[in-house]
Formats: sequence, C-alpha cells, structure tokens
Amino acid sequence: MIEHTTIALLSGGIDSATAACIAMEAGQKVIGLSFDYGQRHLKELQAAADLAKNLNLEDHITIKIDLSSWGGSSLTDTSQAIPTQGIQKNTIPNTYVPGRNTIFVAIGLSLAEARGANRIALGINAMDYSGYPDCRPDYLKAYQELANLSSRVGREGNGIKLWAPLLDWEKTKIFEEALRLKIPIEKTWSCYQGESKPCGKCDSCRIRDKALKEIGREDLCSQNI
Amino acid sequence: MIEHTTIALLSGGIDSATAACIAMEAGQKVIGLSFDYGQRHLKELQAAADLAKNLNLEDHITIKIDLSSWGGSSLTDTSQAIPTQGIQKNTIPNTYVPGRNTIFVAIGLSLAEARGANRIALGINAMDYSGYPDCRPDYLKAYQELANLSSRVGREGNGIKLWAPLLDWEKTKIFEEALRLKIPIEKTWSCYQGESKPCGKCDSCRIRDKALKEIGREDLCSQNI
Repeated sequence: MIEHTTIALLSGGIDSATAACIAMEAGQKVIGLSFDYGQRHLKELQAAADLAKNLNLEDHITIKIDLSSWGGSSLTDTSQAIPTQGIQKNTIPNTYVPGRNTIFVAIGLSLAEARGANRIALGINAMDYSGYPDCRPDYLKAYQELANLSSRVGREGNGIKLWAPLLDWEKTKIFEEALRLKIPIEKTWSCYQGESKPCGKCDSCRIRDKALKEIGREDLCSQNI
Repeated sequence: MIEHTTIALLSGGIDSATAACIAMEAGQKVIGLSFDYGQRHLKELQAAADLAKNLNLEDHITIKIDLSSWGGSSLTDTSQAIPTQGIQKNTIPNTYVPGRNTIFVAIGLSLAEARGANRIALGINAMDYSGYPDCRPDYLKAYQELANLSSRVGREGNGIKLWAPLLDWEKTKIFEEALRLKIPIEKTWSCYQGESKPCGKCDSCRIRDKALKEIGREDLCSQNI
C-alpha cells in the first residue's frame, strides 16, 4: 500500500477529531494543524493538543495568526457578547469569523504541499451549523477549484484534495461515529466562551448537547464535563 | 461621492505600491496589509512601512504568520539557495512559496470584511513573472468565485472585489505608471536575498533591472540603490 498523508485541521472539537480518525482508519498518516487566532476560547487548543496525543497523530502543529487585531466576530472581539438565546434560523450569528475557514484551509494547503500530503481533512458540517457561509458545499467546491490552480502540485495534475467527510452528516451521526472510533469525547472542547467549564448556552454547546441527548449519551453533555 | 476602502496587500516592492496608488488616485481610502511570514528578505517589511507612510495610506497593518516552520521554498528555508542563474522559462522556481498568495488574500478578505472594505488590491502580474501558479488569471478568477461564497457580505450580494490592475501589464508599463504616480522607487525592495544591498542576480532583481533599463532609468536599478 502506498502511504499517504492527510493534514487534519484540528479545532479541539468533535467534528475535526472525527474527520482525522476516519482518515487514520483508512490508512492515512495524519498531521494535525491547529490555529491560535486570537479566539476567546483559546482553551480549545489544549483540547486539540491532548487529542492529537491521545489519537496518536503523526505530528501536531499549532500556527499563530492574530485575527483579533481587527475583530469582526464575538469570538475574536470580547466587547461583543456570544449569543446565548438559542440558534436563530436563516441568520449568520456574530460568532462567524470573517475569512477564518478560508485562511485555515489556505495554511493547510501550504503545509500539505510542503510536506507532500495529498489531502486536507476538514470537520465542517453544513447540516446543523448556524448558517456560516464558509461551511457549505458550494464553498467547498469553489475552494477545491482554487486549490487545484493555486499550487505547483495542482498544476501538475496532483492537486490536494479538500476532504470534508462530515459535510452532510446529521450531528447525531457524527457522535455515533466518534464513539465507534473511540474518540475521548470528554477531552474535546466545543464551547465558545472558553471558561473553565462549558457554558451550555452558546450555539456550539446547544448543538453538541442536543445531539448527545438524542443518542442517549447525556453523560457526555457539556454540563457534565 | 461615496467613499470606499481598499485593502492593498503591500510587499514593499513596486508592483503592490503601484496598485495601491492607482486605488488612491481613483478616490479610495487605502489600508496597507503586509506579512511577516518568515521570509528571508524580511527587509521588505521596512520598505512596506516606509512606503505606507510616504504614500499617506489610511492605515498599515503587518500580520505575523510563520510559514518557515515547514519551508518548501528558498524564501522561507535558508538551507535552499536562491537561484541566480537567470529566469528559466516554463518552470516554477524554488522561490515559489506553497500557498502564500492564497493565505495572503484570505487574510485580506478577513480584514476587508471586518473593516467594511469593498476591494483588495493585488500587485500580481502574470506577464513577466517566473511562472508562479498563484499569479495567473485563472487563479484570480477562481479566487473571486470563492471570495463571493466565503463571506457574509458576498452571500448578501456585496462581495469583496479582488482587483489586480497590473495582471497583464508589461513590467515596463508598471514602472512608467509608478513614476507617473511619484512612487519613490528608491524606497521599494524587490531582492529575494535580503542583504544590505540588492543582489542584482535573483529573478526579482533581474526582472526589475531589465524593465528599468528598458525605460532608460538605470539610475534606479538594484545595483544603484
């Protein structure tokens, strides 16, 4: 078998860890890539490091890039409050960080090309997210086109594949898969607030807890971690 | 007149400064954005700061992002030599930095959306560059499509325009325009080596000097600065 390498963007949450593990199960070497971008919930980076170790990734790299200098999101500007009233349909919440996923994938492409990796694993999921423009299938399709044109390897016909296995999964399916893959869910961090315990009220906590309740694993809900 | 804002990616070289000045002449407010990415020729950042001041830009921001941790280019890995034998046709030289322009534009999109800017000015030029995949028209077109889908403003129909006015210009035309716009060419920095004086032998010095000789301005060539 020819060994291939995947760069897995790792947030410290369950989605990206699941995508990384699916790649490993398929025989890929996985290098985790995390971002210290001035996020309020910097705590997720410790979760990402713990997961990388626990899941036995090939390597784990954290890149610093300060997006808080211009804010534009409640995740990078602490003067804006994180919404706690529940998910609003058909609106993009203020937790949307301008350009964030585009930057992360671009940095992933750089690392992938430099290290000879042929895939970038993304935990993005369009089904039950909060309407972020950069978690949708048309966005991913356009980025694949750009990735093919942006790189030496792409121009040579060996483009780096943007691979988002969870894109159209229900959140419950993601958790079931994570449990099957023996991902230590209690080590993941989803809360936007970044306090010592998850708030249980932000969109991210709500989405996580709802899915865990639906599959009968309340024991892993935010308030119990 | 409604005032608009342009984010101008500023390398410290002549192309990006020219693009910024064309935007200013058209009545745009211009915010310069430069990148400390672990480049060998870090010296270009001082040139960018000097130019931003000299050209009276609205603001100038430098963002740090260390691409040297994975190298993949002679610009970010000092164990690789910068080519000095002259420009080779139909090859991508080792000064190509994987993912660099894709990352820079992505960060520009983040800043533009956060600050309400409607354009990103790029000094990229496809004519006499060294075959970089990420300086070509098809790349730019694909990135515009992605930009429209990636952002809140794009989804709302007010996408940020990627604007590369020099894309198909001859280098001589760029220098003539720069002189007309009274850009202090002697303050720009193009050399890849980053020594105290330009080397005059790298592709970037060669392209610059050839064009300046062609328009009869040898006095501004690398070896005289």
